[in-house]
Amino acid sequence: MADRYLDDLTVGESWEGAPFTITEGEIIAFAEQFDPQPMHIDRAAAAQGRFGGLIASGWHVASRVMREYVDAAYFGATPMLGLSIDDLRWLRPVRPGDTLTARREILAVTPSQSRPDRGTVKTKTWVRNQDGDLVMTFENLMQLPKDASARL
Amino acid sequence: MADRYLDDLTVGESWEGAPFTITEGEIIAFAEQFDPQPMHIDRAAAAQGRFGGLIASGWHVASRVMREYVDAAYFGATPMLGLSIDDLRWLRPVRPGDTLTARREILAVTPSQSRPDRGTVKTKTWVRNQDGDLVMTFENLMQLPKDASARL
Repeated sequence: MADRYLDDLTVGESWEGAPFTITEGEIIAFAEQFDPQPMHIDRAAAAQGRFGGLIASGWHVASRVMREYVDAAYFGATPMLGLSIDDLRWLRPVRPGDTLTARREILAVTPSQSRPDRGTVKTKTWVRNQDGDLVMTFENLMQLPKDASARL
Repeated sequence: MADRYLDDLTVGESWEGAPFTITEGEIIAFAEQFDPQPMHIDRAAAAQGRFGGLIASGWHVASRVMREYVDAAYFGATPMLGLSIDDLRWLRPVRPGDTLTARREILAVTPSQSRPDRGTVKTKTWVRNQDGDLVMTFENLMQLPKDASARL
């Protein structure tokens, strides 16, 4: 994608990312490193638990959604700095083999009052599985340059 | 730690986790998988950028804080399900070699109206670096059993 800056963005603009699948191996590998709870790493224990099998760490789902965002490069190579996340909801479990798709919409585009070379964009993200069920939603505030001449 | 359930928790209770260090290798490995932007994976490009060197992906910091939380097992082996995150703020960059410490406080303990065997606990987490500067804060809502007799 072409590089896109604050001045190029419009509230209400939305786009859908490429579907991606989360494998059992990925679920276990992430959780062994960052979230080693039985429901994420122990197939036998998870089968006896409330979900009847392994589910992905919520932080894994969020991180994997970030990867799709970077790969899609919807804003091109424009440097963007994540400032905050609000209203992140883990709504349904993500299981091995689930295929997820993220849709994003621009909620706000706000030039900085104090630094005219930059501003923020707020997006909302909806992540659905292959059945169309929402598995995660969140809002994300990012800082980016006003235009191609800005050097942050 | 002994297993602790909803009925065992008190609003205002707080605790500090063990310090942990994030290495350059960890920063690059996480970001190559989940957030492959130059500021996280490309030492030379990052040196020319606004932070003057590599910084960790925000999702990496959040995931590493989760690992410390699981390791500390402050609630023992009680099963806890993350429901949501609010007001997550990435306040300062985390650089290779930074040592982080998380402090958590219980903000609310809420029995479920509809399911008397469970409820939610809301915590706030403050993550500081070795200079005492806040690098990340967030609130986290988790579901847990009311007491040892509950089977979720």
